[in-house]
Formats: sequence, structure tokens, C-alpha cells
Amino acid sequence: MSEYSVVGQKLPRVDAVEKVTGAAQYGADVHPAGMLYGKIVRSKHPHANILSIDTSEAEKLPGVRAIITQDDVPSGRRVFATNKVLYLGEPLAAIAATDPDIAEEAAELIKIEYEILPSVQDVTESIKPSAPRLHGDETKDGPNRRSIKAKIKELSGDQENNSAEIRKLEAELEKYADEIYYNISAETHTEAGDIEKGFEECDVVVEDTYVIPRVHQTYMEPHVSVASADSSGKITVWASTQGPFAIRSGIAGTLGIPLTQINVIGTTMGGGFGGRFGVIITHVPAVLLSQKSGRPVRVQMTREEEFLDGRPAPGCVIKLKTGATKEGHILARQALAFWDSGSVSGASIGSTIRVRGVYKIPNIKVDAYGVHTNKSGTAAYRAPGAPQAIFAGESQLDEIAERIGMDPVKFRLMNMREEGDSVPAGGTEPKVGYKETLEAVADAAGWWEREADENQGWGVAVGDWTNGCGPGGVYVSVHEDGSVRIFHGSMDITGTDTAITQIIAEILTVPYQNVTIRRGDTDSAPYSTGSGGSVVTFTMGNTAKLAAEDAHRRILELAAERLNTDKDNLELKDGGVHVVTADPPKSISLGELAAYSLSTTGGPIVGKGSFARQPSTPALAAQIAKVEVDPDTGRTRVLKLVASQDVGFAINPMAVEGQIEGGVVQGYAWAMMEEMQYNENGNVNPGFVDYRVPTSADLPTVESVIVEVPAPNGPYGAKGVGEPPITPTLATMANAVKDAIGIRVSELPIKPEKVVEALKNNGHGA
Amino acid sequence: MSEYSVVGQKLPRVDAVEKVTGAAQYGADVHPAGMLYGKIVRSKHPHANILSIDTSEAEKLPGVRAIITQDDVPSGRRVFATNKVLYLGEPLAAIAATDPDIAEEAAELIKIEYEILPSVQDVTESIKPSAPRLHGDETKDGPNRRSIKAKIKELSGDQENNSAEIRKLEAELEKYADEIYYNISAETHTEAGDIEKGFEECDVVVEDTYVIPRVHQTYMEPHVSVASADSSGKITVWASTQGPFAIRSGIAGTLGIPLTQINVIGTTMGGGFGGRFGVIITHVPAVLLSQKSGRPVRVQMTREEEFLDGRPAPGCVIKLKTGATKEGHILARQALAFWDSGSVSGASIGSTIRVRGVYKIPNIKVDAYGVHTNKSGTAAYRAPGAPQAIFAGESQLDEIAERIGMDPVKFRLMNMREEGDSVPAGGTEPKVGYKETLEAVADAAGWWEREADENQGWGVAVGDWTNGCGPGGVYVSVHEDGSVRIFHGSMDITGTDTAITQIIAEILTVPYQNVTIRRGDTDSAPYSTGSGGSVVTFTMGNTAKLAAEDAHRRILELAAERLNTDKDNLELKDGGVHVVTADPPKSISLGELAAYSLSTTGGPIVGKGSFARQPSTPALAAQIAKVEVDPDTGRTRVLKLVASQDVGFAINPMAVEGQIEGGVVQGYAWAMMEEMQYNENGNVNPGFVDYRVPTSADLPTVESVIVEVPAPNGPYGAKGVGEPPITPTLATMANAVKDAIGIRVSELPIKPEKVVEALKNNGHGA
Repeated sequence: MSEYSVVGQKLPRVDAVEKVTGAAQYGADVHPAGMLYGKIVRSKHPHANILSIDTSEAEKLPGVRAIITQDDVPSGRRVFATNKVLYLGEPLAAIAATDPDIAEEAAELIKIEYEILPSVQDVTESIKPSAPRLHGDETKDGPNRRSIKAKIKELSGDQENNSAEIRKLEAELEKYADEIYYNISAETHTEAGDIEKGFEECDVVVEDTYVIPRVHQTYMEPHVSVASADSSGKITVWASTQGPFAIRSGIAGTLGIPLTQINVIGTTMGGGFGGRFGVIITHVPAVLLSQKSGRPVRVQMTREEEFLDGRPAPGCVIKLKTGATKEGHILARQALAFWDSGSVSGASIGSTIRVRGVYKIPNIKVDAYGVHTNKSGTAAYRAPGAPQAIFAGESQLDEIAERIGMDPVKFRLMNMREEGDSVPAGGTEPKVGYKETLEAVADAAGWWEREADENQGWGVAVGDWTNGCGPGGVYVSVHEDGSVRIFHGSMDITGTDTAITQIIAEILTVPYQNVTIRRGDTDSAPYSTGSGGSVVTFTMGNTAKLAAEDAHRRILELAAERLNTDKDNLELKDGGVHVVTADPPKSISLGELAAYSLSTTGGPIVGKGSFARQPSTPALAAQIAKVEVDPDTGRTRVLKLVASQDVGFAINPMAVEGQIEGGVVQGYAWAMMEEMQYNENGNVNPGFVDYRVPTSADLPTVESVIVEVPAPNGPYGAKGVGEPPITPTLATMANAVKDAIGIRVSELPIKPEKVVEALKNNGHGA
Repeated sequence: MSEYSVVGQKLPRVDAVEKVTGAAQYGADVHPAGMLYGKIVRSKHPHANILSIDTSEAEKLPGVRAIITQDDVPSGRRVFATNKVLYLGEPLAAIAATDPDIAEEAAELIKIEYEILPSVQDVTESIKPSAPRLHGDETKDGPNRRSIKAKIKELSGDQENNSAEIRKLEAELEKYADEIYYNISAETHTEAGDIEKGFEECDVVVEDTYVIPRVHQTYMEPHVSVASADSSGKITVWASTQGPFAIRSGIAGTLGIPLTQINVIGTTMGGGFGGRFGVIITHVPAVLLSQKSGRPVRVQMTREEEFLDGRPAPGCVIKLKTGATKEGHILARQALAFWDSGSVSGASIGSTIRVRGVYKIPNIKVDAYGVHTNKSGTAAYRAPGAPQAIFAGESQLDEIAERIGMDPVKFRLMNMREEGDSVPAGGTEPKVGYKETLEAVADAAGWWEREADENQGWGVAVGDWTNGCGPGGVYVSVHEDGSVRIFHGSMDITGTDTAITQIIAEILTVPYQNVTIRRGDTDSAPYSTGSGGSVVTFTMGNTAKLAAEDAHRRILELAAERLNTDKDNLELKDGGVHVVTADPPKSISLGELAAYSLSTTGGPIVGKGSFARQPSTPALAAQIAKVEVDPDTGRTRVLKLVASQDVGFAINPMAVEGQIEGGVVQGYAWAMMEEMQYNENGNVNPGFVDYRVPTSADLPTVESVIVEVPAPNGPYGAKGVGEPPITPTLATMANAVKDAIGIRVSELPIKPEKVVEALKNNGHGA
């Protein structure tokens, strides 16, 4: 028996009915009176100089109410390209018209003169001197040149005595001319221990290159925004976003509008996964078009536009080297990663450090670069960067385990960090269920008794992630029938409103169905965190707890006044306040108290909670797959897929299972089929016909195992659960395929044709 | 120089732009997808038995989606008439159709068989045995029969010895057979002192009957409601109402739906004046039609329907008798009032006690009856019942003053209660600016030096009112640019949101324009008071103050943490926190603090306030008019109209002036032109062609004088200001007309034809 009656229960989601019946209002359902239809005019080439943009013909088309270009952006922040386009589909202008067809027709009437430039799609090509440049000729050094230069700098303090040595090093520098990287957008370098010495002490060293494709978050609902600028200058934006407050400040910054003049209303999200934070894609064009036309404007992307101009997850190339002793101790790991950041900066390069995993590796060196290519920019996708880095790290661990002849689970268990171990980033390891989680999945999957027929194999991998933490405010009020209302400003991201509702029902001891939760817009709600980084249940759950506790205090005070007793004699339970010392029993229901409150000086029962930061605790996901590979077709069939996760505490185990299943499915798809494909003309599979996502027929049954090692600062010990489950799946699948057919696929996805090709090269083929 | 920088200032209303530009969303602007149009089928007779209602033909009309009658009302509460209709326009059924014309056509297809009954329109007729009965044959006794019966009851303790006396009294009872009243809906009786002895001691006694017509609140926007029942049973109602929470509980009670299943969204009100609290008129039919059709339904009244089935202010007949000494001391006042409650109970009869005014009258007797007539029920209208009672009381005061030869202002001043005087209802009189207010209007109007040409005259009157107090909750949050958001659940009633905004801006020392106020629906806001009874600024102003003070505390705590000092050294002023002890000066802006808060454990700056009851303080309105009556046309022209009012403290003097002007204009209209007219067929002037309201060409300029005697429990000393200014205007106008032409009009309105007729009867005519 749980000590709780609402949290920890598998309760239906608060938004279940509206989602199932279609009552939920998505961005495309928003249609203010007089609304115009926006259309973004996009580059037809991945790399070209723009010689001219002529909108005059389009402006003459009846029904066209506004056309905007970069000239209309007050801050100058790049919303539209001007002199040069950097990717296929880059926005050049936008149109608002009374009808979508007119907008479409007007887009065709805008004359754009291009001077086509050669383009680059591949990070390993883009860093070369031969590659076309996106932003200029600046170069960055690779790892060897960096360390040689560091030594030269050190020696140059005593130029006289070290001149010979310096000359030698300068000559050595020449040898690494291929480490002069072009088109670099960002870099990050991390080192701990002594990497060279570390490798020297190893009995086994494995080195490989891992290639992970760019994939799209493929949320069901494309980006959409409706903006309405009224005559006072006040802007209302209905945005399909994970972070209304971020959109508010993004619009404010881009367009130079005070925050008080912008109200962002978050519409129900049709999936986000990290890709729905950006302000530029549809929101800013919608606002500009509304300002110019004086009418509300909806800008809504098609699926094709999503692929061309969404902000997908970056692909990357990771060169990884790992060394261990023959007893199985991992001593050193070194990574060199190139992340495809597209036309802009960024691209999760900081996540390269996740090749470290949750293992005691004393010597680490990571060099990561963001590389420009002629593609759109990227954004977060469920545990941004972790699936890529962990794919490399966990794939290579299996190679090491194989070389030293150790069971992959045991190998991982013996290297895992433990409570109190020092953490490379500083401090010591908290209590986390690393081993418990891996052991749980091994037990549940039958790892220790595993059997495999021909072409069958088993794979295991683990992935770690730590949830973020953001600011939040929650208001709670108790009404005259004893029911409760919650008001806050965070977007529901698949169950978070349900968790908040459960927490407040638990503390106020009211039936779950008597609690109503509502999301406010940025004009009415307190600042609330963006819904990403697995922060919502952690942050808003803690905030909700504080709000409910505040209301709880007021309830006891009121009851003490009403029942004429000291509040220390009172207990709130089962929806009423009871005098614990009373015999016969004496109590008052919450409804009676709420009705009574309306005639007291203190007034209605309301509570507030506000919260922002507390250290969070890492979480681990461990997965085991059993697969069978058909050597003739190259198809991989999943026979078993078990996923365990240390979630701290499952506030709603059903929702947690949903998150685990969702993460595993997305990881499985990335491993086996998804990839955005590019050639010299840009993206060539911008739609679900050519971009493969799994259908229900493709999907294995996912068996979830919940492990609960409470997080000290989480609400009821809960950790964020959304992101961890995607992190190990890519490697799990690759490890299972390797076990089945002896072939290590290190370039995703593990497509049938790739498997057939590899088997052929290995002598298995026809 | 005021000690305040935001409160006390004439600032523009927060909703000014949306009102002026048409951006405000009224009920008629709400149009959910798939919405049907509702139409209420109404009785064509004021009193009739219903033999049958046949909806079968209407149901067959294509486009008709639902027809409802009283059978569809689960609680049985009268929403539609069944066996008998009680007034012209009473609802019998309602239709929802895809088009308003189809609904109209369907209404004609509903066959209703009536058996017509005689009807009664006049309260003095309705109480007689000859009158048709609305609800039954029960009778009530008039004042003399009541007191005789009381004496008989007293004597019957000793039947033996008192039998002769009892027989005598019983015979006397017979003499008052005309005091057996029929069709009484309610009664109330109040007595203080010894009324008979009081009159005996008087030198002058005046007795008269005052007749005040039923008038409509004539808000610009007719009643409208849009209801949407979703497939889970959840009801959303967009209601044009003064009290969304009252509508929620009203719908819940009438239809047996839990509060959690109803969300009421208050739409911008196009005027209310007390007439927009009812739940039956449009809201319940809209909900029933939506439940039955499965589609959103809008029910919107026409202007004609407003007159037939609105809930206007009750008319009444007041017999009033007042006695005073020749020195001018009022010793006794007795009233017998019949209030026209229409088909239901109620009708402000409790306000008859307001004939007492703010005077020291030791002996008072008031008997008031609500009387059924074949008219719709009534509701509140700006200081419900007070204009009627005060019209009688203040008119008769002038008659007394004239008889004893005293100046009407001096006569009132000498009789006014003073601080510490005992109040008839109990307790003692607080400090109220009764005399200050009357003196202020006399000074401003030039009363003491007044001159009048032929047919010109001056009139004075005062009216008192005490604002109500209701429950409220307010949330406040401070955002990263230092701007502030307010969230609450009360409807703005002409300036109350502006007052709340000013109070919060004052306390948080931020510019008024950086504060945004938003109203929540009943699913998101804490319980908030209905917006009537002049409660909003008193209640929500106090609540807002508490919320801002809560945020203020958090701001100082945060600043102490950030500036590393004790919070006692800190002061919030000019939008920043300053270290008072620092030299050189040291401070941090609210914006910086709010941004900083997002990374603290305590989180965003939020404040809450909740409040319900505190005793409020009476307010006085005093008015003086100078008029000129044209004896040929009977038209009265207002040459001067000055209105003073003790408002406690004017949070926004411009808004206060607006309230004073609005109240005076409505009182002027009631005095001079407005009346709902009835004959045996029911209401005969259901529209603005026949029901006269003043246009701007009719209106005098109103000069406002604000008097500020702070109320101990009001925010900054403020009292409710909306209702008092209508209370004395009816009498002010009648007194001025009397002064001009020597004729006392005691039956309103003072229409030109009535004046001509009276002059003719007085020998002035042709």
C-alpha cells in the first residue's frame, strides 16, 4: 500500500477527453474575425547570392494585404535572407492575403534573382579549405594543432633556449594542416586526467567513427502562429510553443516591443520534443504581417516547410577512442565530434561530453565543433545531443567488452560510478539507481538466461540525463463545493498538467476529478518555465506543492476559526478538516469551509507557490533489445525490447510508461529508419513518403520497468522522465544487431540495404 | 501635493482603447465553430392558461436542432411556463437552429393554445379582492389590521376580562376590510420609537402618496449568452453578466451540474446597472439547448425582448407621512409602500426604510409589501429601491420646510445625524461627510445667493447609500522588465479594473502603464465578488492591496538577498529597491530583481490577496438643480445641475466624476421621462421609440463636487461610488419643479403633459 492516495496512481490524463474528442484547440483552430492567411516565400536554392527581390507584381494582386521582407525587421535580427540565402527553403519574404490561394499565387509573383553558389551538406567536407564558405574565411584548429600551439605558447616564454624545440613543434604543426577547419560555428573542449597516459596504461584500445544523421522531431502539428496587432499596438499571439514566455521575450527582442505590449497565448501543442521553442519560424512573421496589414494573420507551415525550415536535431560525426585494462577497467576515452549546425551556430555540441556516460573514467578528452552546412539551423530534440553521443559511447563499450571477453552488462556494472564517487564536473555522485536500473532491465529481459537462434542477438545500453529546472508560479483556489482550481503558465507536455493536478489533489485531500487545471497566457499567468528539458514536473510539481501547502495553511486557520479550536488540533484529510482530539468525531468539509470563507475578512481560500532552482539528480535509462536480422532482406525484427528507468518517484506510473515508450520508439526510429537526406540541391526527402517514421506496424512492444530511487529535491522524489528513455536506444539497437550478425553498424540508420551491403562485404552476401 | 503618485490621479481607463476601437469582445462577438442560434418562444398574452404546446411542426423544419420546454429543466425551477403564463413575453419554449431566420420561423410553427385570463398591472388594483390572482388566494393584512390583531392577541391572554375590549377591536378590524391585501409576494415591517406619540408632538404633519414607475436599466447590450456543452458534459458559458461565479452556481443549481463541470467566461459588459445577475434569462436556455443539440448555442435578446422579459427596476406606490415641530425638528415618519414585483417575489421592498434618510428621526414606522402583477420579475437597478424611497422622503421634506418656512438646505443640515449619534439599526454613526457634502453642493451651486426668474426654481435633495462588500482574490506577478500582471475574477464595472491597477501600481511603485490586468474565467480565477452594490473597488481594491503587499514583501526579501543587506535597510520606490543606508546610493530595479528571481529557489515574484468582509461606511450624495418650466409646453429645462458626493477617497477622480455624472443622468431620466407603460395587454412601449431615454441633446451639464471623508476600512479610505449619485436626483428634480411653478408632482415622470395638466388644474391653464 502506498502512503499516498493520488500521487503514485495510474490516473487518466486531465486532457484525455479534449484530446480524444477533438475539442482541444490547436493553433490551426484559432480564427479571429478578419484573419488573413500568411505565406512565407522561400529560397529555391541551398546557397545563392540574392541579386534582387521584386514584390511589385505581388502587391498588385487583389486580396494581398501585406508583404514583408527583412527591411521590416526593426532589430535587424535575421528573419529573412537579404544578400545571400544559406539553405533551401530559407525565408525571403512573407505575404498576408485574404485567402490561402491568393497568398500562394502572390508568392509565385515575387521575382527573385539568384546567383547560384556551390553548397556543402556534409560536415567532414565543410571543414575543408575546398568547401564553399557560408559566413567567411575564419578558421579554427583541430585537437592536435591546439595542443601543439599550447606547447609553443608555453615554450615561447623563454624563446632563446627553446627556439629549436619551437621550430620542431612548428614543423609538426605543418603535418596537421588538415586540422585547419573552415566553416566552424562553435567549439568546446574538455579534458580531465591525462589522456595520453591513460591510453598508455590500457590493454585494449578501440577507435571508431560514428555517424548519426540529422532527424526531424516529426511532431504531428506543424508550426503555426496567429498574431493580432490592435490599434493601440498591443500584440496578441496564439502560438503553438513549448515556452510562451520565451516567445514573448523573443518577439520583444526581435521587434523592439515592450513586454507589456505582447500577450502570448499558448495553444494546445501537437507535439514539441524540443523543436517548438523558436520565435523566428512563424511567430515573428505573423506579428510583422499583422502589424503591417492591421488584421489578424495566421502563419502555418506545411509538412514540406517543416522539413525544409524546421529546426531539427543535428546530425554529427564522432571519432571515438576508448581504452580499458584486460580486467575491464575503462581508463581513457577521447572524442572528436563535428556537429552539423546548418546555417547558424549551436547544435548541441556541449552534449559530446556525454560519451563519458555514468562510468568512472579517469582520463577524458573531448573536442567538439559545430560546423556550418547549407541546411536550416537545428534545435533541441529530446535530450539534445545525448542520443548521438551515447550511441557512440555505448556502441564502443560493447566492442571493448567483446575484446576483453566480458559480459556487456557486467562490464558496465563494474565501471559505473557510485554514490560518493567524485564527479568530473565537480562534487560527488548523489544516490542514483545506476546499477539498480541496469540490473532491473537485465532481470526483466531475462538477460542472464538469454538465448539466441541464428541471426538473433541481444543488445544492451544505458543512457543518462539530468533534468533541468526552471522558474514557475502556481495559483490554487478552493471553491464552495470543495473543488479546486489550479492556474499557471506552463504548457502541458504530455502529462505534466496531470502530475500537477495529482500533487495538489494529494495535499488538499480532494478527489482527483474535483481539481481543474487551467493554463494562463503571459498577460495573466506568473512567469513559468518553458516545457522542455524534462523540467516541468520537477519545477511545476515543486511549485504546485508550495501552492497547495499555502492553501493548506489557510484551510487550517479557517477551520480553527470556524470550529473554535487551535489549529494544532486539526488535520486535513478526505476532503475535510477533522478535530483530532474530538470525541465524538467533529469535522467540516472543504466545501463548507470554502463557502464560509466568502464571509470572513480573510476571504476565499487561495494559495500561491513560486519556485525556480534546486539541484536535480541524474536519471538513468537502461534498455535491452533482442533482435533477429534477416540476412536476405537486411530487415531487423525486434523480438523483445525492455526499458528500465530510474524516475525517482512515478507520480503517475501510466504517464511515466507513456514517456518511456515514446522515448524508446523515437530512439528506435532514429536507429533504424529516420534520416534527413541532402544532396547539392538541398534536402531531398521533405515529406513522410520519403522520410520514414515508424507506423504502429513497425513498432515493437516496449516493456517498461520503473525504478524509483528518490531524488532529494524532486516533488515526492520525482525526476524528469521525458528525455532519458531516448538516450540509450540507438546504441541498444546497434549492439543487438552486432550480436546477431557480427557486424557493427556505426553509421545510422541501420537500414536494410546497409545491412545487406555490410553482410556482403563481410562475405555473408549472395 | 498628494502623498500618492498613482492613486488619486485622473488616469485613463485601462480598457479605454479596446472600448473605443471596438476591440472589446462582447457576448455577440463570441462565435464558436458550429454555433447554433437560439430563439425563445414567448407568451403572447399577459395572463392565460396554457392548454397545449405542440412543437411537432417546428421540429420538422430543416435546420432546427433542438427544442426545449420546462420538461427539460431537471430541477423543476421555473425557466419556462407550463400550465399558466403570468406576463406578456414569458418564455414557453426555446429553439436552436442553424440560422436565426430558421429559429424565428420555427417559433411561429410552435402551436400554443391559450385560455385568456384577465390580467392586473397596477399594485393598488392587484391587492384588491376583485383582482385576478397570479398565485393563489392567500391574503396579508395591512398596517392597521396588523396592529389591531396584535392588540387582540395580547388581550386574549386574559379572554374573560378582556372580551368586551376584544369584541370592540374585532369590530374595528371590520372597518379595515380594505386592508385585506391579495397577491402579496413579500412583506417587511419596521418600527422604532412610538409613531403615534411622535405625530402627536408635531406642529406640522404632511401626508402624500408618491408613485414611481417601473423603469428599465436600458444597458446598451441586451442579454446574451453562448453555451457549449462538450462530449464529456463540461459546459462552457460565455456570459454577459455582472457575476460569473453567481451564474456558475445558478446554472449548477438549476440544471443539477457540479461546479467543476461549468466554466463561465464573463464577456465585456455593455452596461449592467444591477440588471445583469440573473441566470434564467438567457444563460440556462443556452445551456439546455447546447446540451440537447450537442452544438454551441447563442441566445441573444432583442431590445423588445429586453423590455418584455428583462428584469427592470420595480415601480412602487409609497404613502408617506412626516411630522415636525415648528422649529424644524423632524419627529415622526411613517410609510406604507407597495412595490410592483411582477410575477415573482422580491422587488427591493427592504429599501423602503430609506425614507428615513440620514436624519435624526426618533419615531419611524415602515410597512412595505411586494405585490404581484402580470409583468416580468424585477431586479436591482443602481442602489436598488433607494431612488424610489428617497424620492418620497426628500420630496416631502421640502413640503415640511415650506410649511414651517425654513430653507430646505438648512432644514436638512439641522436634522442630519452626526458622528456618534445612535443609528436606528444599532451602533453609532461613523464619521461621514453628510453635512460637508450638502454644504459643498450648496456652495458650488450658489445656493445661498440663488436667484430665480419667473417659472424658474431651485431644488435640493440628498440620498444615502452604503456599499456592499464581497469576497475576492487577486494574484499579482512581477515580470523580467519590471512590469506587473494582475489576475482576478471580477467583471470590470466602469472603471474598477482601473482602480485596482492604480492601487497595485502605487504599492509596487511602477508606472501605471506597465501594469496589465486580466480577468479570469471561473475555471481559473479565485472566487470573486459579483460586480454590483458598489462593492468592487471596496472589495477588490482591498484585495489588490493585500496582493501587492504580499509581492512587496517578496521583493524586499529578494533584494536583501541580492544586495546582501538586511531587508530593514531597503525601500521600494520609483520602480526599484534602494538601500537607504548606502552612500553612494545603491539600488536595483524591479526588472533586474524579477529577472534575478527566475534563478533563485524562491522563484518568480508573485503575490496573492484574498479578502471578503469588513464593515463599510455610508456615503452621501447631494444635488441641487435650477430649472425653468415652460408653462405652455410643460417642458422643464435644467439650467444648472450640481452633484456632490462623499466618496471617502477618489482613487481615480475622473472615473468618480464619470460615476457621478452617470448616476445623475439616470436619475434625471427617471424623474423626467422614463416609464414602462402597461395596459391589459401587457407592456405597450417595448422599444426606444416609445420608451424615452435622454439623448445627449436632452441632458444638462452635470457639475461634480468630490468630498473626501475617508472610510476606515476602504482602500485608501475609498467607498463605493457607483450607486449613491442616482439616489437624490428624482427628488431634486421634483423639488426644483415645485419651486418653479408651485406644483408638487408626486407621480413620476414629470412629463410635459403632466405639468400642463397640473397647471391647468391649478388655474394656470388657458
